[in-house]
Amino acid sequence: MVKVSIIGSTGIIGKNVAFTLAREDTVDEIVMFSRPESVDKAKGETYDMYDALAARDIDCRLTPSCDFNDLTGSHIILIAAGIHREKGMKRLDLAIPNAEIVAYYSQKIAEYAPDSIILVATNPVDVMTTVALKASGFKKSKVIGVGNHLDSLRLKNYFSRQIDINSSEVHTRVIGEHGDHMVPLLSSTTIGGIPLKYFVEYVDLDIRALVEQLKNAGNTIISKKGATEYGPAFAISNLMSTIITDSHKVLTVSSFLDGEIERVEDVSLGVPAVISKKGVAMIVPIHMNDIEKKEFYAAANTVMDVTDEVLAHLDL
Amino acid sequence: MVKVSIIGSTGIIGKNVAFTLAREDTVDEIVMFSRPESVDKAKGETYDMYDALAARDIDCRLTPSCDFNDLTGSHIILIAAGIHREKGMKRLDLAIPNAEIVAYYSQKIAEYAPDSIILVATNPVDVMTTVALKASGFKKSKVIGVGNHLDSLRLKNYFSRQIDINSSEVHTRVIGEHGDHMVPLLSSTTIGGIPLKYFVEYVDLDIRALVEQLKNAGNTIISKKGATEYGPAFAISNLMSTIITDSHKVLTVSSFLDGEIERVEDVSLGVPAVISKKGVAMIVPIHMNDIEKKEFYAAANTVMDVTDEVLAHLDL
Amino acid sequence: MVKVSIIGSTGIIGKNVAFTLAREDTVDEIVMFSRPESVDKAKGETYDMYDALAARDIDCRLTPSCDFNDLTGSHIILIAAGIHREKGMKRLDLAIPNAEIVAYYSQKIAEYAPDSIILVATNPVDVMTTVALKASGFKKSKVIGVGNHLDSLRLKNYFSRQIDINSSEVHTRVIGEHGDHMVPLLSSTTIGGIPLKYFVEYVDLDIRALVEQLKNAGNTIISKKGATEYGPAFAISNLMSTIITDSHKVLTVSSFLDGEIERVEDVSLGVPAVISKKGVAMIVPIHMNDIEKKEFYAAANTVMDVTDEVLAHLDL
Amino acid sequence: MVKVSIIGSTGIIGKNVAFTLAREDTVDEIVMFSRPESVDKAKGETYDMYDALAARDIDCRLTPSCDFNDLTGSHIILIAAGIHREKGMKRLDLAIPNAEIVAYYSQKIAEYAPDSIILVATNPVDVMTTVALKASGFKKSKVIGVGNHLDSLRLKNYFSRQIDINSSEVHTRVIGEHGDHMVPLLSSTTIGGIPLKYFVEYVDLDIRALVEQLKNAGNTIISKKGATEYGPAFAISNLMSTIITDSHKVLTVSSFLDGEIERVEDVSLGVPAVISKKGVAMIVPIHMNDIEKKEFYAAANTVMDVTDEVLAHLDL
Repeated sequence: MVKVSIIGSTGIIGKNVAFTLAREDTVDEIVMFSRPESVDKAKGETYDMYDALAARDIDCRLTPSCDFNDLTGSHIILIAAGIHREKGMKRLDLAIPNAEIVAYYSQKIAEYAPDSIILVATNPVDVMTTVALKASGFKKSKVIGVGNHLDSLRLKNYFSRQIDINSSEVHTRVIGEHGDHMVPLLSSTTIGGIPLKYFVEYVDLDIRALVEQLKNAGNTIISKKGATEYGPAFAISNLMSTIITDSHKVLTVSSFLDGEIERVEDVSLGVPAVISKKGVAMIVPIHMNDIEKKEFYAAANTVMDVTDEVLAHLDL
Repeated sequence: MVKVSIIGSTGIIGKNVAFTLAREDTVDEIVMFSRPESVDKAKGETYDMYDALAARDIDCRLTPSCDFNDLTGSHIILIAAGIHREKGMKRLDLAIPNAEIVAYYSQKIAEYAPDSIILVATNPVDVMTTVALKASGFKKSKVIGVGNHLDSLRLKNYFSRQIDINSSEVHTRVIGEHGDHMVPLLSSTTIGGIPLKYFVEYVDLDIRALVEQLKNAGNTIISKKGATEYGPAFAISNLMSTIITDSHKVLTVSSFLDGEIERVEDVSLGVPAVISKKGVAMIVPIHMNDIEKKEFYAAANTVMDVTDEVLAHLDL
Repeated sequence: MVKVSIIGSTGIIGKNVAFTLAREDTVDEIVMFSRPESVDKAKGETYDMYDALAARDIDCRLTPSCDFNDLTGSHIILIAAGIHREKGMKRLDLAIPNAEIVAYYSQKIAEYAPDSIILVATNPVDVMTTVALKASGFKKSKVIGVGNHLDSLRLKNYFSRQIDINSSEVHTRVIGEHGDHMVPLLSSTTIGGIPLKYFVEYVDLDIRALVEQLKNAGNTIISKKGATEYGPAFAISNLMSTIITDSHKVLTVSSFLDGEIERVEDVSLGVPAVISKKGVAMIVPIHMNDIEKKEFYAAANTVMDVTDEVLAHLDL
Repeated sequence: MVKVSIIGSTGIIGKNVAFTLAREDTVDEIVMFSRPESVDKAKGETYDMYDALAARDIDCRLTPSCDFNDLTGSHIILIAAGIHREKGMKRLDLAIPNAEIVAYYSQKIAEYAPDSIILVATNPVDVMTTVALKASGFKKSKVIGVGNHLDSLRLKNYFSRQIDINSSEVHTRVIGEHGDHMVPLLSSTTIGGIPLKYFVEYVDLDIRALVEQLKNAGNTIISKKGATEYGPAFAISNLMSTIITDSHKVLTVSSFLDGEIERVEDVSLGVPAVISKKGVAMIVPIHMNDIEKKEFYAAANTVMDVTDEVLAHLDL
């Protein structure tokens, strides 16, 4: 029996992750955790989901709850609770209230579900990953932030569509910060196994424009439809099912670094990692060119600054 | 190449149908049709969906559009546009504005996509099915309302969960009106091939309570989460993929009746039908007991009254 | 981790069941058990299967083995070993040598995998089910024969093709003996929820010819291609995945009867049963008409006679 | 409606390809073509397959036939007919009789299904690809040999298992001859996007032994179980579904070369190609190191010699 819990399950990301997992029949039970005042909404979600699941003869238990005892036995717990960035907010205006939320739930998880793996989706996700790590006291392989996996999927998609080639043929990766300081690893991007630099001799590609489009992707969607919804939900459920099926795929996740990458310590950043049922089984060695290195260190510095302030505030 | 168009694609049902079809890889292209002022929102939906599809290596073209020329070549066109029932509204307060919308689009469909099949999801769906039929001038097998299929799925789900048996083992059907006058066909419900009346000797089932729950199902979800979302989308995409794959399943759809059921003519109501790539291939003969018959005739009268008023208003 | 073992894994049924389970990604490990002299063949099968699985990115461990210790931890063990019926053989010529094989392995299973569920595919399967039950000492819910499920699938398929309706709409069942005394339960067959007797008013169906075709189905295939292969493998893997996913479907299996059906005791016969992770969760009550009853009792008598002789021979 | 024909459908590869396509629901009709004396066997296969398909509610038409008219309308025709290599046979002992078979059917295909794409699986496959091309008079993008795709899948699988990483993370390719002169493209192999040469610093890999195992893989399976079965069938069905779904994947296929690779002309060899509904959409540029180049030219020479002799014999 595989059980997963989602904290913040009535939010747009939380509920979409729940429904994606349910309908792909990946898990046996999903605890839709929410604050007491939202449990009725969570209940409504489960009724609606059961209607849909019946249309596909899928059987998955959905448990709306605000009782921490229901977290016990979860293999994975997703923290998707938090406030959203609004116009004019500074970095810390978002980071501090969300850190309080993430820290609170991480401590509860450590208490009620000490064997679980924590996924963090609350933004700024690289900072929140460190918060969850410190607050839970879990070992670092078991606390994983979800951010650059979506960025990587987007970049893969752009190449696939531009070159008119199946997206499974595109291996590319975005590392660093899930935010302005993301680092597209163009130097190790391959198309059908062919390095991008050889491939571009044959096709017309404005890579600089693609990278620009990538950095704005989330905001573009938000400006048009109000929020990102399906993309993040699928990226997160991808990661969850990789853990659940112990399938040893290499995904880009935010992981706490303490030396795996030269000169980077005490900060969580997006890096490629082999994901197994234990969480991060291994951080994959990356080869960056000089420009990429410089960008990665810039990401590290930015995230570290905010992390330090937030940890100081939380006294963690 | 299978192409489907969705009119009202930025609404909650429309966009969820689109995403369900896309991610199940049922079709090659989905036209997300909307009013000019919503095309930008439709665009945002497609960007978000592409992100999710990239996570599963699925390739499906999503075309946001407000240009009727893009409907041309569609196999199926779903009309999901319309206003929602609000508190205090009388039947005709909803039916008349929606009938104007449905009639308008049906005429456009007849003009731009005369070979398509029209699905109607706008409420009151049984009335709107007749409106679409008259306004398009299509033959009756090609105009199909979606309503009781969801009700049937719900009832199936209730039995499945109460009896703890796989939902694929439950054959049950709700016919009549998609609304207060729905008729659960308990007399021909079977569980694992065993008639319900024999099965209930072995299990404890409060059928009256289940039927009550069924009638309130939609409103319960709306009261808790604000709208029904996944359930209707899956019911509709079920119907669409049954048409596309020409799979000759028996689904309960709203179909214009002119004598298939004794004493019922000139009205669209939920009945079981064999669905093929041509739309309704055959209305399946139903056997009702006396109570069910009475309820069915009541449904017919109610729907017919509203339909007549609406058609008169539209001068159709 | 779900583990399944197949005894007789280099035989045509055994290897096809293994491959079907592997490629549907239902289990984590399959022990391909064989006699020591066939382990090398089993190894060859696994190499070939791994090549195919790589083509679909499926990960499943295949363990060729002749060591009973490898059975330990299996959720299900399929006994598919035995000799085949040849021309001129009398019933007992087949039953006695196969009973010795089935009894031997059942005792080993009881010793090495006492928590497993035993599936029996060796023919005559209804007799062998009782042999496996007695030899293992397992409780009756955990010893299941596979026979009439394939017959039922065939009959379903015939109706589906004759009426041109999706096979998921046909609920029919063949019970009794997996052999000459099979009993098609026509009286409770439904098409799209409509009883067959009503449906035949609308379509042209020679039911007697269909039943004749059903009884000869296996022999027809054997006479043309030498053996049945895909059909039995899929019927068996169906049953296995129903157990593994605990999905509470109603399948027709050979189960030891001690009173569930009036006047039938101490014999295993094909009956509809709710299948869960515990094996047979419940034998479903059946309603037969007089002809069906008579045929069922004839099946019971035939199988019981052979079973008694075989048990006496084995001293069980 | 997608229709595929298989010539040699009662052979072990032919029937397994048919069944794989049928059960993955990729096509609407499969013509199981065979010589007149084997049509009854083909019929037996279809009965057995229908039983299995009924177990999964899959609908696919299977047409046993020895009438060339039934080929008409096929999207793809697989030539899998031919004799097998036996001990002591010299290259031409196999190549000449099979070339006669392939040439005969290719001419018939040109006559009865001029719009189809020809896949060749008969060995020696690189030679037979040129034979089919010349005999059919088709343009080169529409005649495709299947050989190195299976070799590539095997090598991918070896790396995946040795490194304990999901096989979807391994991009590797075997080009050249489908036979002794295969060329593993180790220099452009990547694991999770990381070049193999970097990855091996972290893991223990005896690459030379893997390549040796790869070259013997087919023979090892044949020596143990008598024939290769599932592996080739899945490689071939992979290629077919890539064509059918127009999915623009890069697969290694045998394609007639006339200058795409420097110094190689007038011979069919395994190369990476973008596969679309039109067949070979583009031969992907490959970068070989000096050793790989040398091996590739050796493959070219060997295959060219046999091809020339065979074409001379056939007077093509």
